[in-house]
Amino acid sequence: MTVSELFPGVFKLTFGTPEPGTPATQRYVRPPRREALAELGTAPMPFAPEAIEFRTLPRGVRLTLPMSPGEDIYGLGLQLKSLRSTGKKRTLRVNSDPAVDTGDSHAPAPLYFSSSGYGVMLDTARYATFYCGGNEPFDAAAPEELPPESRRSKVLLTEEALYAAAREHLAPMVIDLPTARGITLYVFGGPTLLAAVRRYVLFCGGGCLPPEWGLGCFYRACGSSDQAQVAALAAELRAEHLPCDVLGLEPGWHSKAYSCSFRWHPERFPEPQKLLDELKELGFRVNLWEHAFVHPSSPLYRQLSSCAGDFKVWQGLVPDFTLPEAETCFADYHREQFTSRGVSSFKLDECDNSDFIASPWSFPECAQFPSGRDGEEMHSMFGALYMQTIERACREAGIRTYGSVRNAHLFAPPQPFVLYSDLYDHRDFIRGVTSMGFAGMLWTPELRHAESREDYLRRLQAMVLAPQMLLNIWSMPHPPWRQLQRERNVQNELYPPEVQAELADRTRESLELRMRFLPYLYAAFARYHFEGIPPFRAPAMDYPQEEALRGVDYAWLAGNDLLVVPFRAGMTELEFPLPPGNWYDFYTGKAHRGSVLLRPELTTLPILVRENATIPLAEPEEKVVANMRYRLTVKTFGPNPEPARLFADDGVSWAFESGQGAWGTVAPDGTLSPELQTRYCRG
Amino acid sequence: MTVSELFPGVFKLTFGTPEPGTPATQRYVRPPRREALAELGTAPMPFAPEAIEFRTLPRGVRLTLPMSPGEDIYGLGLQLKSLRSTGKKRTLRVNSDPAVDTGDSHAPAPLYFSSSGYGVMLDTARYATFYCGGNEPFDAAAPEELPPESRRSKVLLTEEALYAAAREHLAPMVIDLPTARGITLYVFGGPTLLAAVRRYVLFCGGGCLPPEWGLGCFYRACGSSDQAQVAALAAELRAEHLPCDVLGLEPGWHSKAYSCSFRWHPERFPEPQKLLDELKELGFRVNLWEHAFVHPSSPLYRQLSSCAGDFKVWQGLVPDFTLPEAETCFADYHREQFTSRGVSSFKLDECDNSDFIASPWSFPECAQFPSGRDGEEMHSMFGALYMQTIERACREAGIRTYGSVRNAHLFAPPQPFVLYSDLYDHRDFIRGVTSMGFAGMLWTPELRHAESREDYLRRLQAMVLAPQMLLNIWSMPHPPWRQLQRERNVQNELYPPEVQAELADRTRESLELRMRFLPYLYAAFARYHFEGIPPFRAPAMDYPQEEALRGVDYAWLAGNDLLVVPFRAGMTELEFPLPPGNWYDFYTGKAHRGSVLLRPELTTLPILVRENATIPLAEPEEKVVANMRYRLTVKTFGPNPEPARLFADDGVSWAFESGQGAWGTVAPDGTLSPELQTRYCRG
Repeated sequence: MTVSELFPGVFKLTFGTPEPGTPATQRYVRPPRREALAELGTAPMPFAPEAIEFRTLPRGVRLTLPMSPGEDIYGLGLQLKSLRSTGKKRTLRVNSDPAVDTGDSHAPAPLYFSSSGYGVMLDTARYATFYCGGNEPFDAAAPEELPPESRRSKVLLTEEALYAAAREHLAPMVIDLPTARGITLYVFGGPTLLAAVRRYVLFCGGGCLPPEWGLGCFYRACGSSDQAQVAALAAELRAEHLPCDVLGLEPGWHSKAYSCSFRWHPERFPEPQKLLDELKELGFRVNLWEHAFVHPSSPLYRQLSSCAGDFKVWQGLVPDFTLPEAETCFADYHREQFTSRGVSSFKLDECDNSDFIASPWSFPECAQFPSGRDGEEMHSMFGALYMQTIERACREAGIRTYGSVRNAHLFAPPQPFVLYSDLYDHRDFIRGVTSMGFAGMLWTPELRHAESREDYLRRLQAMVLAPQMLLNIWSMPHPPWRQLQRERNVQNELYPPEVQAELADRTRESLELRMRFLPYLYAAFARYHFEGIPPFRAPAMDYPQEEALRGVDYAWLAGNDLLVVPFRAGMTELEFPLPPGNWYDFYTGKAHRGSVLLRPELTTLPILVRENATIPLAEPEEKVVANMRYRLTVKTFGPNPEPARLFADDGVSWAFESGQGAWGTVAPDGTLSPELQTRYCRG
Repeated sequence: MTVSELFPGVFKLTFGTPEPGTPATQRYVRPPRREALAELGTAPMPFAPEAIEFRTLPRGVRLTLPMSPGEDIYGLGLQLKSLRSTGKKRTLRVNSDPAVDTGDSHAPAPLYFSSSGYGVMLDTARYATFYCGGNEPFDAAAPEELPPESRRSKVLLTEEALYAAAREHLAPMVIDLPTARGITLYVFGGPTLLAAVRRYVLFCGGGCLPPEWGLGCFYRACGSSDQAQVAALAAELRAEHLPCDVLGLEPGWHSKAYSCSFRWHPERFPEPQKLLDELKELGFRVNLWEHAFVHPSSPLYRQLSSCAGDFKVWQGLVPDFTLPEAETCFADYHREQFTSRGVSSFKLDECDNSDFIASPWSFPECAQFPSGRDGEEMHSMFGALYMQTIERACREAGIRTYGSVRNAHLFAPPQPFVLYSDLYDHRDFIRGVTSMGFAGMLWTPELRHAESREDYLRRLQAMVLAPQMLLNIWSMPHPPWRQLQRERNVQNELYPPEVQAELADRTRESLELRMRFLPYLYAAFARYHFEGIPPFRAPAMDYPQEEALRGVDYAWLAGNDLLVVPFRAGMTELEFPLPPGNWYDFYTGKAHRGSVLLRPELTTLPILVRENATIPLAEPEEKVVANMRYRLTVKTFGPNPEPARLFADDGVSWAFESGQGAWGTVAPDGTLSPELQTRYCRG
């Protein structure tokens, strides 16, 4: 074992002989933010390196790390089925349909954080298994134990009770890493849980700062739309004054999708440049759906055929993006054909893995790629490699992008993409927002359709203070406010005009609320970038000492001052355990302490505000325009409000990376500091 | 690669350097039935050995085997979620909660059979993944392909449609075998699918032949029962004249369960020998619940502590049953304490793996055992090893046993245990009966409780012609006919007396129908043992050429002449596709051809009979007594009924293994051939 401290509180431990081609060796890894790491100060190793047991077995490597009583484990990627991993077994398989609470995920990552204030990352692309304190070692050399005192408990008549009663002992973290002969661990010190997360984010290069338009509203058009229908949709959105910054096109834009040709469909989209220009004129950015599987009819096919894995996906080849020539070929093509012609964003679909659906489509874990990576490693890193490739196509065309992706892994914080899923349970969707921060990823509970008006309003609200406000209407020919239910929408069974109008009004209200928070959210993302603080966080990340908040997977902190408790269809009230201090109702200003009984109207997203916060709110715009000035008002909460911090740059270019951009303050009376005045004014 | 033909139509192919300690090297492997294999005659390799591609990768071994258009794949262990594996990816993880259709199973096994008439077994205890014809290789040396003709298909608006439409090409069987550096394959020739299955069963030593009492009825007492309550239950069953051969005791008989002490509880069961003697007097066999995790308070603990894995389960040690000393210690104790004192059968619980429940309990895959096996290998083989150990304890006490188990693997056919699950979906339970034959295993859709009278009757019926008729009432204090619903039963909310009486009558009818078929079932099991024909088979096993039967996972052939189509709650009618020829309604004798519209009464299990069959039926007994004579009547079907074959031995000892026992015939007029007359008479 070798140990070194790379940055204050960031430790690297190497055991045995690690595999080649791990995530840390990939081009998508950005330089750490050294200065910000230094500012966080020192932190000790949370346990002695010697306390880690390392064993090499025929099947791979086994690590045993100490755990303490009361310790809770978070992370291991985007987990939709539960927030805490404590006591669980999590196998980090990449899975497009993670229907059970097993560790399977669109975006698993061998990275966890402890409520005791530290984090551990394994630099591996293998599907490792983490036994998070549920499995006690047996020592054959010391088997003698006093049996625990005989409990005259009554006999239990359910499996759950039997199993739960039998497991009462403390156990370590056991990590089962297949195939490898060694491993590099990175340990992130605290002392707080949030500090450990920040060290990880900064070590990865800081969080992404989306362009301002990326924090606006997205609408994905129906998959069957042609050019005229997309143009009509754009016109309708503007006519209805529904805020929208990005229009997304689904697979139908390709001449062949599943796999992809990456060429416009000659009949459905005969004049793509005309469409792109029209949409730009109306103030829309364009997002294109694609996956990376290249159809034989694609111009990319021939060149990539020497850089492809040895299994097809949907008859298409699978590029080995770890090879520079594959990345360059794919990125150059996208720059020439799309990003230099008015496309700003992409939806990178199916880069996860089809483990468990009726008709599996992805490449096997035992596939081989020319670089030497196998399918398992490639599945873990495919999203990260794909994001890197596409971001390059954007960056080289001068576009700061913000898109969607269905897989991510380690080193994800700087990648400007938001995760999504074909699953749709609203509880799981909300939970994802709480788990993503421990993964260094972004996730949004997108809206696709709704079972009822209540379901629709609740789903809209849950996105207002989330990474992306996304109406993904790909499977319905009409906007949701004309008919919420998919089956009826497809059958053209629309609501009466007055119902449509009312639903459009409600939609507009939610979208406008999003737009009002845009400067606040932009500042939260700037903190993610510069300071490593995730913009959306499970309450446990900031308050691990609060037992009542440890398991809260249905509410989150947005930025520094807001606490969001989205309701779901069927919920009428909720007693919510508050963090320490006074918290104020965003709408009424009423103070609460200890806990709050929430009974929001159907049209209201419950938001609580930290004491003495000043919340800047923008006049809602229909779209973000480069270098526009946001008209701000403020709301203050508590007796001694402190100024709000906002970040001002041009909002669209990469100039902020080289220092073009500044933090400024908004005083409780609305006064703006000079740094902000090019981009903000009093509303 | 080396190839050899071990028996006619049974081929052994070795690639690379296989791992040590594989299933084929374990003591639970029985000698093949050479003569029966010879009688099946020769069969060629289904494909040239050179057509198999073998590659060694860092993560393990990859095998690619040819598949042909239209080929369907069955097997890969007990699969509850789907019968056919064609086009699917199946990862053979041992899982106590196999809730999704992924290959996870209580009893996965690396063994599959093809509708083209062959079988393939991998001698491995690894969690191999089988890509069953869904993944097409890509050849970088020949990437040029004509794109498939452009289809002007309409754009698809569901994920399922998108994915299904995109996958239309033929692909091979790809097997991903982690860790290994080599593998031994066994290929079982046909020419028919059933012949391939038979070769596998006979290669494993033939199927198990349960004692006659094992084909009677099982009732498991409530987990909270004490000695007096068990005795009262036994008396009640006899008073009600409800057929029952085996009474099962749940964990409460142990002084400590979870993990187990393997000692009688001093308060709940103060006089165990008295209870065992009383039950014997009433004609009951006794089955004891246990798992193999040994609590520190157990007499076995000290001796086994040097033969245990390096993780505890529920504070207990995990014996390494691959070690002869562990097997001997455990078997000797069981013989001395239980099987020589009147216990005839065991329920071997939790020998699978707790992959995916909220509170995982089993040992990690990365656990190490003294023999050198790891947790992954041990999970695959644990059930087989445990069955071997317990069967030895029975055999050495002269007991031919038949019990329950929750894990099995390769070489399972001779093991006299029936699989079960904590899951309870009736559709899945019925499907298990159709998939088990392709796994060389036994499974029964046990009854635990019911949502309704209809659910109860249908669940009872589904066991009548299944491996075990098992009322597993462990979680309810009262028999189900007093209250079917668990929650109410626990609350002592019982039905009015007349309802209880009516339900007891219905229960008796189903149990008696089971007992009527007992000689028929015994003969079916004897064929399993001597001829390798699974007693219960998916219709596809006998009729793979019938397209309509390929996917039938809700009906099965029982023995040679019966076709069972169990109904489930909510079903009122079903148009069933019949195999070729005429089939007759068991009750009315009405002939059907091509298909039959089934509309059974709630109290009727639909059974169809092959043309010209003679079905012997016994007078229903309440219990099986050694060397009793069954009083037979016959039912005949079709114009030219042929004699039925029955097997006669003492029904309780191992003498049949050394030739003590004979086949005989029952003529259509009920005349018995001489071989049968010691055990059967005309009723």
